Amino acid sequence: MPTTQPAVPAVVQRARAFVRPALAQAVARFPSGLERVAGYYFGWWDADGSPVAGRGSRSLQACMAMLAAEAVGADAELALPGAVAVELIHNFSLLHDDIIDGDDIRRGRPTAWVVYGTGSSLLSGDALWAAAVDGLLAVDGPAGPVAARELNNALTCMIHAAARESDFDSGPVAALSIDDYLYVCEGKGGALLGSAAVIGTVLAGAPAAQAEVLREAAHKVGRAWQATNDLENIWGDTALVGKPGFQDLRSRKRTLPVIAALQSGHPAADELACLLKGDLDDNALDRAAHLIDAAGGRAYTREVARTHLAQAMNLLDTLALPPAVHEDLIDLLDFAVTRRPRTRRPLTKSARA
Amino acid sequence: MPTTQPAVPAVVQRARAFVRPALAQAVARFPSGLERVAGYYFGWWDADGSPVAGRGSRSLQACMAMLAAEAVGADAELALPGAVAVELIHNFSLLHDDIIDGDDIRRGRPTAWVVYGTGSSLLSGDALWAAAVDGLLAVDGPAGPVAARELNNALTCMIHAAARESDFDSGPVAALSIDDYLYVCEGKGGALLGSAAVIGTVLAGAPAAQAEVLREAAHKVGRAWQATNDLENIWGDTALVGKPGFQDLRSRKRTLPVIAALQSGHPAADELACLLKGDLDDNALDRAAHLIDAAGGRAYTREVARTHLAQAMNLLDTLALPPAVHEDLIDLLDFAVTRRPRTRRPLTKSARA
Repeated sequence: MPTTQPAVPAVVQRARAFVRPALAQAVARFPSGLERVAGYYFGWWDADGSPVAGRGSRSLQACMAMLAAEAVGADAELALPGAVAVELIHNFSLLHDDIIDGDDIRRGRPTAWVVYGTGSSLLSGDALWAAAVDGLLAVDGPAGPVAARELNNALTCMIHAAARESDFDSGPVAALSIDDYLYVCEGKGGALLGSAAVIGTVLAGAPAAQAEVLREAAHKVGRAWQATNDLENIWGDTALVGKPGFQDLRSRKRTLPVIAALQSGHPAADELACLLKGDLDDNALDRAAHLIDAAGGRAYTREVARTHLAQAMNLLDTLALPPAVHEDLIDLLDFAVTRRPRTRRPLTKSARA
Repeated sequence: MPTTQPAVPAVVQRARAFVRPALAQAVARFPSGLERVAGYYFGWWDADGSPVAGRGSRSLQACMAMLAAEAVGADAELALPGAVAVELIHNFSLLHDDIIDGDDIRRGRPTAWVVYGTGSSLLSGDALWAAAVDGLLAVDGPAGPVAARELNNALTCMIHAAARESDFDSGPVAALSIDDYLYVCEGKGGALLGSAAVIGTVLAGAPAAQAEVLREAAHKVGRAWQATNDLENIWGDTALVGKPGFQDLRSRKRTLPVIAALQSGHPAADELACLLKGDLDDNALDRAAHLIDAAGGRAYTREVARTHLAQAMNLLDTLALPPAVHEDLIDLLDFAVTRRPRTRRPLTKSARA
């Protein structure tokens, strides 16, 4: 599977450049074995240590922390420890999730546990977490502990969501609720993005409460983002997604298109339920994708992604933001969900309504 | 292998009772799948959820946090969030270490990853960590963040030590230094015990600097404790240790008796080096144990354990402690290393010199 370096919006490129030196400094303090794993996940080098122009972390959370500071009119530099912390935590969660899910491909490359073993990957994740907290608690003044507590709340959400997700995948299909699933999505993707907004705001010297609308928008985006992930895992361009097709279906994950299809009442749902209980060879996977589509699971999931992204955008409109920051936030949230930079054009509020 | 409920000193029993209700409260907030794993490691229930009187955590770190508060004349209750936090972190580290090392028996029972799978064990470890930080950052006033930072430093030491340990086990024997090994031991066992002393002190309202001697004593104990572990893994009573014999040798871990034997210059060292490169069946393991002993690895490790414990006791003597707390601390540190409650008798400083 070829690795494609996807296009990113200018604001995300700016966030990556913003966070990179401090991130490299934090990781350079690791024992060499752990630094190697971390840099591989950040996309800095290949399994053998040679520099790559591969696809690393998208740095969406770091971007949100940076923009949150700019949103309250502060110098983004104040949010740097927060941007670094959320970037570290995002990669911590990927390292641990790939072990938990047994996924062997991420961003078009073998996952860390495949390359370096479970032990080193697990420990590297732990080291990233400790480095994130270290950076926040080193901030002078009362903002550091507030930011650290916010980060810890996000971590708690993420960990609990991952646990509920695996209960999901092992429980009976009939017991699944779409609302539960969306709640888990929020914990998986939205919690850290929302906390990044709060952390950036707090480090910029503004009250945490001022970030609550951004947090809510991030939670909406978390849902839309997971819905899009679920779609791309079945019908996406594998080179762009960086994962093999049908990875979720193959491991019988209860993703949104599957849940929606199974609960649709459509005749295809029964065949799908039977199919998912049997052996899943390539033919069966193709058939499953067709049945999910026929039962309306694909259309439903698209609609979830569309409406939640639109709700997030509407929330941004309620904020009195500097226009440049407003546009950057639209770029960020849109990119988080669509994975493609939007074509910028002057947007009026009525045009998006 | 039968499970033996080992005798513990009264102060350790007191610490367990002290920490248990708050610990149960923290873990009750977990999703049920993670609570099940955590309670299994705390020794509260069996794999199927039935209550057991099995051997759980020894709660040495919680005991240290409690005694550190008493050492500065404060009510131990002030140190409770700290005692809970270090107990959570100790069990976090066991959950992750057992995955990393691939160990399948702990405290006479199958390890959590064997019973519940790698994913649930890993996530439970993460959840314990997040709960520990949550408890400390919920403490009112400036002590909470100071304690959280201290805990995070201990975590960083532990994680980096675990990484260095695995470099150790995969590197060439000639490159091993006993000092490096002891440094790793300090990170593995001593760092959290030392931080427990600092955290208890700080939460009790005393300056962190006041805990530095206790921290140093804890580091000495960390070395003695690991040396004793290494001995017991080869020559110990498997029922008391709660692990199968030769677990470390079998997985070719470079423990202190092995390193000391290999570097002894004794003729047995060469045979040992060859033996450890080959297949390790039961006969080979018996022979290896014999050769380590013959080359002086056992005696050397005993001496390391003895002198470091004695140094820790001497450090306690330099503190002006309330006599009851002094005796409790001796009980705790002695038990940490020997695993058996000492027979209390009135000790004079000269008697221990």
